[in-house]
This record gives sequence, structure tokens and C-alpha cells, in this order.
Amino acid sequence: MASLNKKFPRLLPAPIRKGMRVDELIDTAFKAYNGARLAEACRLFTRKMIAGEGTVGMSLTGALTPAGLGKAAIVPLMKAGFVDWIISTGANLYHDLHYGLGMELFAGSPFLNDVDLRRDGVIRIYDVLFDYDVLLDTDAFVREVIQGPEFQRTMGTDEFHYLLGKYVHEREKRLGLKETSVLSAAYRYGVPIFTSSPGDSSIGMNIAAMSLRDSKLLVDVNRDVNQTAAIVYAAKSAGATSSVFILGGGSPKNFMLQTEPQIQEVMGIEERGHDYFLQCTDARPDTGGLSGATPGEAVSWGKIDPSNLPDCVVCYCDSTITLPLITAYALSQAKPRKLKRLYDKRDSQLEALRAQYYRHGKIEKIEHRTDLDATPKNKTKPPPTKRGRSGRSVVGTKRH
Amino acid sequence: MASLNKKFPRLLPAPIRKGMRVDELIDTAFKAYNGARLAEACRLFTRKMIAGEGTVGMSLTGALTPAGLGKAAIVPLMKAGFVDWIISTGANLYHDLHYGLGMELFAGSPFLNDVDLRRDGVIRIYDVLFDYDVLLDTDAFVREVIQGPEFQRTMGTDEFHYLLGKYVHEREKRLGLKETSVLSAAYRYGVPIFTSSPGDSSIGMNIAAMSLRDSKLLVDVNRDVNQTAAIVYAAKSAGATSSVFILGGGSPKNFMLQTEPQIQEVMGIEERGHDYFLQCTDARPDTGGLSGATPGEAVSWGKIDPSNLPDCVVCYCDSTITLPLITAYALSQAKPRKLKRLYDKRDSQLEALRAQYYRHGKIEKIEHRTDLDATPKNKTKPPPTKRGRSGRSVVGTKRH
Amino acid sequence: MASLNKKFPRLLPAPIRKGMRVDELIDTAFKAYNGARLAEACRLFTRKMIAGEGTVGMSLTGALTPAGLGKAAIVPLMKAGFVDWIISTGANLYHDLHYGLGMELFAGSPFLNDVDLRRDGVIRIYDVLFDYDVLLDTDAFVREVIQGPEFQRTMGTDEFHYLLGKYVHEREKRLGLKETSVLSAAYRYGVPIFTSSPGDSSIGMNIAAMSLRDSKLLVDVNRDVNQTAAIVYAAKSAGATSSVFILGGGSPKNFMLQTEPQIQEVMGIEERGHDYFLQCTDARPDTGGLSGATPGEAVSWGKIDPSNLPDCVVCYCDSTITLPLITAYALSQAKPRKLKRLYDKRDSQLEALRAQYYRHGKIEKIEHRTDLDATPKNKTKPPPTKRGRSGRSVVGTKRH
Amino acid sequence: MASLNKKFPRLLPAPIRKGMRVDELIDTAFKAYNGARLAEACRLFTRKMIAGEGTVGMSLTGALTPAGLGKAAIVPLMKAGFVDWIISTGANLYHDLHYGLGMELFAGSPFLNDVDLRRDGVIRIYDVLFDYDVLLDTDAFVREVIQGPEFQRTMGTDEFHYLLGKYVHEREKRLGLKETSVLSAAYRYGVPIFTSSPGDSSIGMNIAAMSLRDSKLLVDVNRDVNQTAAIVYAAKSAGATSSVFILGGGSPKNFMLQTEPQIQEVMGIEERGHDYFLQCTDARPDTGGLSGATPGEAVSWGKIDPSNLPDCVVCYCDSTITLPLITAYALSQAKPRKLKRLYDKRDSQLEALRAQYYRHGKIEKIEHRTDLDATPKNKTKPPPTKRGRSGRSVVGTKRH
Repeated sequence: MASLNKKFPRLLPAPIRKGMRVDELIDTAFKAYNGARLAEACRLFTRKMIAGEGTVGMSLTGALTPAGLGKAAIVPLMKAGFVDWIISTGANLYHDLHYGLGMELFAGSPFLNDVDLRRDGVIRIYDVLFDYDVLLDTDAFVREVIQGPEFQRTMGTDEFHYLLGKYVHEREKRLGLKETSVLSAAYRYGVPIFTSSPGDSSIGMNIAAMSLRDSKLLVDVNRDVNQTAAIVYAAKSAGATSSVFILGGGSPKNFMLQTEPQIQEVMGIEERGHDYFLQCTDARPDTGGLSGATPGEAVSWGKIDPSNLPDCVVCYCDSTITLPLITAYALSQAKPRKLKRLYDKRDSQLEALRAQYYRHGKIEKIEHRTDLDATPKNKTKPPPTKRGRSGRSVVGTKRH
Repeated sequence: MASLNKKFPRLLPAPIRKGMRVDELIDTAFKAYNGARLAEACRLFTRKMIAGEGTVGMSLTGALTPAGLGKAAIVPLMKAGFVDWIISTGANLYHDLHYGLGMELFAGSPFLNDVDLRRDGVIRIYDVLFDYDVLLDTDAFVREVIQGPEFQRTMGTDEFHYLLGKYVHEREKRLGLKETSVLSAAYRYGVPIFTSSPGDSSIGMNIAAMSLRDSKLLVDVNRDVNQTAAIVYAAKSAGATSSVFILGGGSPKNFMLQTEPQIQEVMGIEERGHDYFLQCTDARPDTGGLSGATPGEAVSWGKIDPSNLPDCVVCYCDSTITLPLITAYALSQAKPRKLKRLYDKRDSQLEALRAQYYRHGKIEKIEHRTDLDATPKNKTKPPPTKRGRSGRSVVGTKRH
Repeated sequence: MASLNKKFPRLLPAPIRKGMRVDELIDTAFKAYNGARLAEACRLFTRKMIAGEGTVGMSLTGALTPAGLGKAAIVPLMKAGFVDWIISTGANLYHDLHYGLGMELFAGSPFLNDVDLRRDGVIRIYDVLFDYDVLLDTDAFVREVIQGPEFQRTMGTDEFHYLLGKYVHEREKRLGLKETSVLSAAYRYGVPIFTSSPGDSSIGMNIAAMSLRDSKLLVDVNRDVNQTAAIVYAAKSAGATSSVFILGGGSPKNFMLQTEPQIQEVMGIEERGHDYFLQCTDARPDTGGLSGATPGEAVSWGKIDPSNLPDCVVCYCDSTITLPLITAYALSQAKPRKLKRLYDKRDSQLEALRAQYYRHGKIEKIEHRTDLDATPKNKTKPPPTKRGRSGRSVVGTKRH
Repeated sequence: MASLNKKFPRLLPAPIRKGMRVDELIDTAFKAYNGARLAEACRLFTRKMIAGEGTVGMSLTGALTPAGLGKAAIVPLMKAGFVDWIISTGANLYHDLHYGLGMELFAGSPFLNDVDLRRDGVIRIYDVLFDYDVLLDTDAFVREVIQGPEFQRTMGTDEFHYLLGKYVHEREKRLGLKETSVLSAAYRYGVPIFTSSPGDSSIGMNIAAMSLRDSKLLVDVNRDVNQTAAIVYAAKSAGATSSVFILGGGSPKNFMLQTEPQIQEVMGIEERGHDYFLQCTDARPDTGGLSGATPGEAVSWGKIDPSNLPDCVVCYCDSTITLPLITAYALSQAKPRKLKRLYDKRDSQLEALRAQYYRHGKIEKIEHRTDLDATPKNKTKPPPTKRGRSGRSVVGTKRH
């Protein structure tokens, strides 16, 4: 009992005052429940995830770009070097185009009559409204762009988004816009953006329709799986941390987390899981879905390094509240980092992973690694060259 | 279509920057979904609820005082004159005593072993921890205080909490503490605090046990029901607004909202419902409970003036996140108000209501008011003396 | 690993077939997540809570009686002797009156326009609709009844509801209705019904208004607190189990759980907490509120016997789904029990508790019991006469 | 007011009785809130979606097959001809393999220590447990199978799953298993199964790793997008209904709903949206994500025919509860339907869509259809040959 004050900080906030800064308020008054989780998330992100050379992946689900969070938060985070790679739903990237192309979205209301809206040609995403022509014009832009010769082949979604982002960036410049679009910023800052469900969005729909004509564009899903694993492997094999910042859940969450099992098990390369885990979601664990699965459960799969569980935070709160707060906190308390420009390293990182895979991987059943967790993490990891050296195995973990 | 830009603001946030103030960030980047609701809540509270002479009632559920939000947010709001009366669960007031009595609570973790905690005498409220003695000492304080002669009678909970708050305030002074306790602040600032479930907390439990000895203290539930209605009636009959700021839901939410039907129907006095409605909750409407019932539904009951539905905001988010943000926003953008000291007016306000009730109320079935909503609200209400003057009735609304 | 099949049942459900009975389907196909929790709830209730002589308390929150669950489920459970005492919100009892008085409620829709409804005199509870006159007539009934001489005094809510239930039962008979009302059934079957927030409902509002006239009716909150503790103490001191079946959360949940700390700590009588805990709710623990607090957390407070944690089930699901399923399961798999008629024993049970309290309780600070959990529960408890006999204390636990 | 009884059924359930059948209980006692939604879902599915020749698509998210719901519910629904095509997460199909390959999963607990589980080689999905070797053996099976010559090419996921299902079915037969696997049943019954995120699962991970060796297998995302649209178009152009049964939300929900905009807008073929919409989810609309987006919002996008909004049901409840109940209800109240074997028609359906697209589609911006909703749906639709025949456009709607 007496030991409580040795183990835990006293909970005695200062009174909230006029004119407080965001980071000051969070450090002062967010002391329990999801408020405390949000404060922990801010500190985890600022003091650990973006500290040093760590690689930070962000996954985007929920209609964040329609809500303006691309321009408000995600682009500033990319620009500051705080987000190194992204996995997004297609919808977030499709709606990001509206901003990059200078189209207008409106802050409306969720209580409008949808039959009337349909009649009037108004599209609704909860309380975000825009004109039907926003869709038609965006579609036309996508179809026009992907007819270009550089798109007439099979490619990963990171490459596709990079090429698309270039066109968005050009359009932005022509329109006198700056920093409005995630795709454009990703192109400029060399941040690879993947989509785990490439057919599932208006972008994918237009690509698919054009493929019924003479388009040769096809997404190379296999490359995406291996490329994302290569990014994580590059970070870890260099002795740096790999962090995940998950907004929402869904397929992008799993796609981001499965990089570790892909390395460890499917490829047979010794590894221990992501270092830092930060999720903002409203999905609770009890329904069994991966969206709400806890970092603890991810440990049982080897997705998360068990010695890092204390550095895992889940905040149950809408991303439209948490993301601006975390962004403001991080920008206020941390200096911008040098951009990693991971996009420029895509071929070399994939090659490095492939080489390790050839050294350790097998096609038949991989044996169960017997020395699992034999060496509790002591932050002075064995040098990468000593990893998984035994011919016989090497696996560590798993995934959905 | 073209009309979207006439009806709704464009959704084009500025990028989040280093060092932003809380109110600045909220006005800049909270544009959609619950983020937008939170921004609307901040503006509704700051620009309408506490504008002018409006009376603001706050209901507290969820373990807010253990989380430090009494000291951090509720006391500053009371001190600034932004909260005029309160309905709280007993638990929030019981745990508020710990702060006022200088006891220690700790910011712990929700992932501890409860069997171990029980063995070690540690009490847990999600991630808030404290020593078992905190409870025993608080209990002893309550039992000691309520043996005083001023407690040997039947009284409303506002009076009980006022008398209790006086002792807390004295203890605070002796300990050199300032502004730590809601009960103490309520005593100082004349803010009446009611409990809708007076037996349901450690305070009520100690009162009940003492009543098995020779204590004469008994809560006058009837007085509470009528007194809360009297506060609302005083505001409305003076031509001012009545607002509700609901944290969580539960019994305090209903108790706060039922004031209007109590006036209109049970007492037969013409009225139109609360003016402004602000709720932060995680209870969704679809399960049918009152905690998640929408302001729209409250309109069907006459609890909310239908012409004010646009001024009703529900933000689905943990109060440990929303309350500090709304508090910081309001303190930053509004000047302190003159304290209403409603506690000092409790007898006169109740008398005023009783007089109106005698004039209009009936015991038998009250007839259905036929001119319901005949005069759409035009903000120049009929003078109070003309209200419900007909002998035959006058009622308008209902409640759970 | 190989040991999984020794510790856990294999998860291999049979295919769902045409014509399956409710209990059969639940035992066959509810194998994981909230489905499994619901199956566990059914079995916990049927095989443990209502097995033998155990006393079962049920708490009601959410608008269950408007949804028809009084008639459909709660009355059948009372009649079968499966629910021995009840803590309800006032709203559930007020709306129960509509059924007992033969009034009409309708299965409507949640998507109606509330301003129109208000204009047309229609009241809405999510998708339940009824006429404004249902309220006016119910109010008139309450006001008429409580003018009777037997109501002109201070009394516990169990007594009040019993007296009210008698009138409802008479009205039912006159109307040729049977088994429609919880209040009426409680009167017939001797099931005490308490309200933890007696002023908070239309019943309380009418009582309060009448108290401004010449009514002498006042709720004795202290009696309710002690009486509920007496029911639990009677069960435990007789060597039987005490179970809680919590629908929703809120004040009734806490009021039901606080009986144990009231016995153990405030009264100083040695006890170990409720035996079985079953809750159906949509409130998650992470927001810190008591509604979503886990049985584990309740252990740290002594509300739940730690050796019984495996017998605690929380199912996150709307009560309108779980309650009919649990009811059908229990009625199908268990025989009716002899009615306990706890109402008839209210005075003797309270006296027994008071006597123990006089023997063990103190007014000053109760010392921390040093032998807490010294004797791990072995189901052969020490005889009640040996409990807490030492002058020096005896306490065990706590509450909000 | 008096009109309530003309518009809505009276809410007066019968008492629940011993031995009730599932469908009987649902029709008797599920009268309000999510209980009523579940009853409506049962009736919508049974009386409208599977009535006549309607085509029913089901989307699967959340870990349903690990929970045993493949064998318990999905296979029986496919066998009865009640589900004609499926969009699933990869995880549901990967874990379905365990059942088809005769491996063991266990009904465990969510409260185990994950660090211990990892050490012991136990994998956890909330409360479902299985041995690490289950993963290794399943992986080896996938890698072995996809080395076959029929897999050495680019193909849609429906074809991939069909080919894979054949191997599962053979393994089932060899093991003496029957009806345990969704993939096997899909192969037998000709039910096409798509995955919207083909790289996102252990199946996709193994395919990707093998592609680093000499495997030629690549998913044709474009074909999936067009093929799913072709299934819907085939139903609608034949004058039959198209229904969606959505379990959870996520990418599969959007992928299923986007078929209509793909037809209408991207391909320029006149259409009006899906006819019946049934979703079981815990995602609420207010967070803005598509998982919780309402059928109303889908109307504004043209995904749902506005004249069918009354036939759209969303039940907020865990699928582990709703799916067994809906399955039992449907099997009890409807006769099996003739299997559609849509898989066998995949080429002809795609050709039919492509032909219409060539007739109506454009690459440039498609004009806004001016006669949108000119002809309110009167259930006697214009003959398909007259649809969208004008050269100039024809589009109607949209998607994320």
C-alpha cells in the first residue's frame, strides 16, 4: 500500500487556465481513462516513436481526408518527418484528391434527408457534404492520368500512388495550392503509401473499368506485401525501432501488423515484433474483430515484441479528436526530423529482404523455433548477422 | 447544389502548427464527426450557454472526480461562474472528499491483478488507484460530520452538500489546500449540488448506517425534485435561458431534464423546455436507454424546446477528453461571470414555483393543452404573468 | 501446447438446423466473443444462480418495460421464482404502469420527426411510441392512489412499490388482464422492488408535487440502503449464495453491488462479496464509469468474492436481445423454484442485520482488517456466529 | 394520435415460455431497440432477401470462422441456397482452412496472459485459442497447394478460392469430415468468394513470399471489381433483387456496396442501387467511418435504392449473437432454394457487363444524369433493354 507512491505518480492535476497550449493542457489535465491514454499516446509518439531514427508507419481508416485531416494533420506530420510510410484505405486517398484538385467540401450536418440530398446531387459522408460533380471530376482526373504510358504495367500501390501524387502535385501548383493533399505531399517527401484493398475505392473502380478497355494497369499485391515487410525489416536490421500508429482499425491495421510475421515466419528471418504500438479506435476487443484486438493479443501472434507491452497505447476515441491533439502535441514538443524518403529506397530495401529470405526461408513446413524468447530483450540486441543463422528454423510469430 | 456554399461553411482547415492554443486548435482543425461535435460543444457553451444571464446546470456521471477533473475542470468552471448548479452521482461527491481532505490518489494502470490489489489493500477505479485507508478515513470523516446538530433532520441534498462542503472547506484551509474540491467550492460559490440517487454511494451508506443508531438525518427527495424545477423555472420566468451540460448520462441526466416536465405537466405551468443541450457520452441511442437518448427524442417529451434543436450537441467521447478541452476553450474565450449563488435563493425560488403551482396545478387528470406550439418561439415570449392563466390547464410536455 | 485440449473444450459447433429450440441453439452455436458470453450467462444463471436456495437480485436500467420486456420476460422470471428482488430505475416502473393499466404502446420507428411527434402528441422512446394521454392518465392514477391513507408517511421504496402494486393488480383484474405488469407481479409474488433514485421519474415527480400540497408521502432512502443490505446478509448468513443479474448499469448497478461493502465495512460485519455476477451492458470499462466497471474491479472493492471471479460474466449486448434469450434458456432448462417472498420478511431481515451491526459496528474509523483473505474460501465458511466477533474490527471491502 | 394504432402494431408481447423455438421467441419477444432490429433482420432476410430469385451477397469481417460460425451458420446458409456470393476478409478464409484441414481450435478465455501464451506457443483470438502448429501446418498446406500448375497465373480471387476450395474439399473427404469449411462448401455449391484485400492475410502473405521465388500467382484485382459488379448487374438486369447481408463492416462492406456505383457511374449503365440491406455491426455512424455508415447515407451515394429505405435494417450487435439467430430463423421459416451456382456463370456474367459498358461507358467526364429519380420506382421497372440507351450518359450515383 505505502508503495503506491513509489510505483505510480500522484494524481493531482493543476486547474485548467485561460490560454493554455494544447500540449500543456494534455500534460496537465488528462490523468485517467481515455484522457490518460491520449496523454500517453502523445508522449509515446513524441518521446519514443519519433525519437532517434525510428521508422513510423501510419494506417488510415475511417473517412479522415474528407474531414480535412489530410491537410490539417497528416501532411504536417509527413512534412515534419514524423510519419515515414502509410497504409491507407483507398477511400481516404480518393477523397484526398478532391483537396489536391481544389474542389470544395462543406462542413454540413448528419441530420439531413438523404432522399432529398440524392435528388439534389449532394453526397454525404456523415456530416461532410459535397457536390456530385466533385466525384465526376475526380473520376475523370483519375481516368485521364492512368492512361499515361508510365501506368501501363503491373506495379505496387506505393509506386502507383507516387506516380499519381506527381500529377496531383502539378495540379496543386497550377492552382496555387500548397500542402493540401496527402498524395501530393507523399510524392514530395518520398513517403510510400500503400493500400491493402486496392480494388476497394473509386480509384480501384476506375482502374478496373479501364482494364476492360485497353489499360494495362494492374496492382501487384505481392509486391505490396513484401515491400511493407521490407520497410520494417530495414528498420529493425539497422538496429532502429519500428512503430505503428493506427487510426481506426480494419484491413490497414492488419496489413501493417502482418509485416512482422511475414518476416519472422513466412520468410523465416529471426525478429521480435514492432517496438511501439499506438492505436486510436472505437472498436472494443470483446467482439473478437482485429480492429479492436489489443496489443496483448498481438503479442501472442508475435506481432508485438512482448518486452514492449508497456509501450503500447490504445485510446478509445474518434480520430477526429485524437489526431489533431497528437499532432499539435508532437509538433510543439519535438523538432522536425530529417525525411527518410523511404520511397527512394524501395528497390534496395526489397532486395535486402529477398536476400535474407533466400538465406533462411523454406517452402515446406517451417520448424517451430525452440529458442523462442530465450534471450529476453535487453535493448542490446544480437547483431543482425547472427540472427536465424541455424539452417533449421528461425520462426517466431504469426498473424491473421 | 450550387447552394451548398450558401448554406454551409467550406471544410478547409489550416495546417496544425507548433505551440497552438487549445481554442485555436479546436476552431482550426475539428471539422467533422465527433471532432466537429466537440468544436460545436465548445462554441455552444461559450457563446450561448454562458452568454448573458443564462442559467447552466451540469450533470456528473462516470468517475470524474477520481480522475482529477473536479480540481482540474469543474472547480475552475464554478469559480468562473460558468456552472450554476449541479446534479451529481453520490460517488463523484464521495471521491471528491478525498481531494478536499488532502488524501492521495494515483495515476495507475487498468492492467493490474485485482486479486493482488485486494490482498494489498489497494482500491482500483479503472486506472486510478488508492489506498484502502482513503476509504476508511473518508468514511470516518462523513460519520463524524453528520453527527453534528445541524444534520439532525430531513433536508434536501443541496442543503446537505452545502453543510458538508463547509466542513470540507474548513479542512482544506487547515491543510493549506486551495480549490481542490467540488463540494468545498460549491459551498464557497453558492452552487447547489443535488444527488438524484441519495442512497447510492458511500455517503448515503454511512448516513443509512447511522440512521440505525440515533441519527435523524434523512434526505428529502421531494424537496430535491421541486427545488431543481424551481431553479429552471426561475431562469425561464425571468426571460433568461436554461441550459444543461450533461457529462455521461444515467440518473442525473434524467433528473436534470425532468425539471421541465415537472414544471409544465405535473405542475401545469406553461413552459417550453430547456434552451441549450450539451451532452458528452459514449451511450448510443439505439439501445433505447435514456443515457443515449437524443435531444430530438427529448423534444417529443417537451424536455427540449423544439425551436432550439439546432442548439443541441451530443459529442460521443469520453468526458476525460472533452471536459478539459471545453473548459480550456471557455476559459480562454469568455470572461468570468458574476456568480449567481443560487444556493442563497433556494427558499425564494421554491416559493415562487409553489405559488405558480397553486395557481395552475390540479390533482386530477390534467387536460391536454390544445394550443401546443401554437405560437412558434420568437424569442419575445409572452410575459410570465400571462402564462397558463386559463383555469383548465396549460400543460405541455413529459418525461421518463 | 498439447495441454490446450486438457484445459479447454474444443470449438467445433454443430451446424444450425431447422426448428431449433433457443437453449439448444445457444448450447450449440454460441462459442466465442459475446456469443460465448451470452451462452455462459445462460448457464451461469440456470445452473448456479438459481440452483438451490440462492438469492437472485436483478437490476433494471434502460427502457426495458416500454420495450415489453416486463410482460415478456421479467414477470415470467419472477413467477418462476428466478428473481427474488429487484432494483429498478423509476422510469421502468412508471412505464410498467401503462401495461398494468391496459394502455397501448406501439412498435414504431426511430426515424420519425420529433417536432411532428410533439405537435401530434406522440411520445417516443427510441422506436416505442405512445399517445400523450398515456402519460396524463398514468399520472392521474399515481396521484389518485397516493392520496390513500396508507401512503401518508415515510416509507422505503419496496413498501411503496408493494402498496402501489396492489392497486395495479386490482386494476389488472378489473380489466381482465393477467401478468402484464412487473409492479403487479411483485405484489403478488412478494418480490421487493427498490429504486435507487426515488425522485428521478414521473412517479417521483408526482409524489414531489403532491408534497407541495398536503401529501405526507416521503421515501425513506436510509431504509432502502439498509434493507437491500439485509436481503444480501440474510442469504449469506444462511449459507446460501447471493447473485446479481445486472441489466444495463447506472445507479441501480451500484446500489445492488454496494450491499456487500455496506455489510462488511460500514457495518463491520465479516463477509466476502456476492457469489455470482451477471451483467448485460453496452458500457465498456475504459471510460472509467461504474456502468462498465468489470467484476475484476469490483473484487478490488470487496463487492465480489475473489474466489468467484470465474463465475462472473459480462455480455456486451443490448438487453432487448439478451434478456429474452436468457429467460427462454432458464425456463427451458430449470424447474420453477419456490417463491422466496422476501417482501414478507423485510422487517425480520432488517432486524437481523441491525443486531449484527450493533454487535460489530463502530462510528469512529474502523480499523483495517489484518486477516483479510487469510482463509481462502473453501466453500465451508466459518459459521456466522464466529464472524467478525473481535471488537477490533472486521472490515473487508468497499464501494463507490 | 388516434392514428398510432393504424400505422404501427401494438407492442404487447406474450410471456416467454419453456421450450420455445428460436423463430418463435424472436417473433414473440423482440419488440424494441436492437431486439426489434434483429427481428426485422430475420424477417427481411427470410421474407424478402431470399424470397423468389433474389441474389444475396454476404460480407464477412470480424473473426467469424475462428468462432466456429463457418461450420455452424455460413455453410448451412450456403447449402440452403440462402447466400449466393461472398466477400470476406482473408483472415476469415485462412482460419476456415483450420476447420477444413481437421485442426483443433479451443473455446478459451480472453483473460489469459499473452506473454505466457507466446512462450507456450499458443495463439489467441480474443477467447479462441489454438496451437502455433495450426498456423505452421496451414501455411505449409497453402504453399504446397499454390505450387500446382493451375495456380501459375494471374486470376481473380473468386477463381483462386474455388481452386483452393477444391483441395480443401479433397482433404475433408480424406479426413472423413463433412461441411466444416466455407471454402470447401463454396467449391461444392459454386458460391464465388472474393477478398477485397487480397494481400492482407496469411494466405496473401504466403502467396507474396512464393512470388519472390518462382511462383507466378498474382491476384487480378481488376477482375474482382468488375466480376462483383457483374453479379449484381446480372441480378438486376434480369428483374430480380440484389441484397447485401453485411456482417461487421470494413473493406468488404464497401467492396460489396460499390458494385452499384461501378455499374451506374463508372460504367454508365442505368441502375438504382441494391434492394435490401442488412447489417449487423457495432460500428456507430457518428465516427464517420464507412463501417458504421447508415443505409440512408448510402442512398445519397446511389448505393441503395431510395425507395427501399424501409427495407434496410442495421442491428448493433455482435455477429456471434445475430448470425446464429438469423440462420436458425431462416432455416426454420423458409425452404431451401435452388443453388444459383454463380461461380459457373462468371465468364458469361462478366461478358454481359462488359458489353453494356462498351455501349454506355465513356472515358472522359460523364455528364450528370438530369433525369435522376424522374421515375419514382414503381416496382414495374423499365425493361432492361431500354436502360441508359442514350449516348450521352446515364449515370446515377457514387461510392467511396
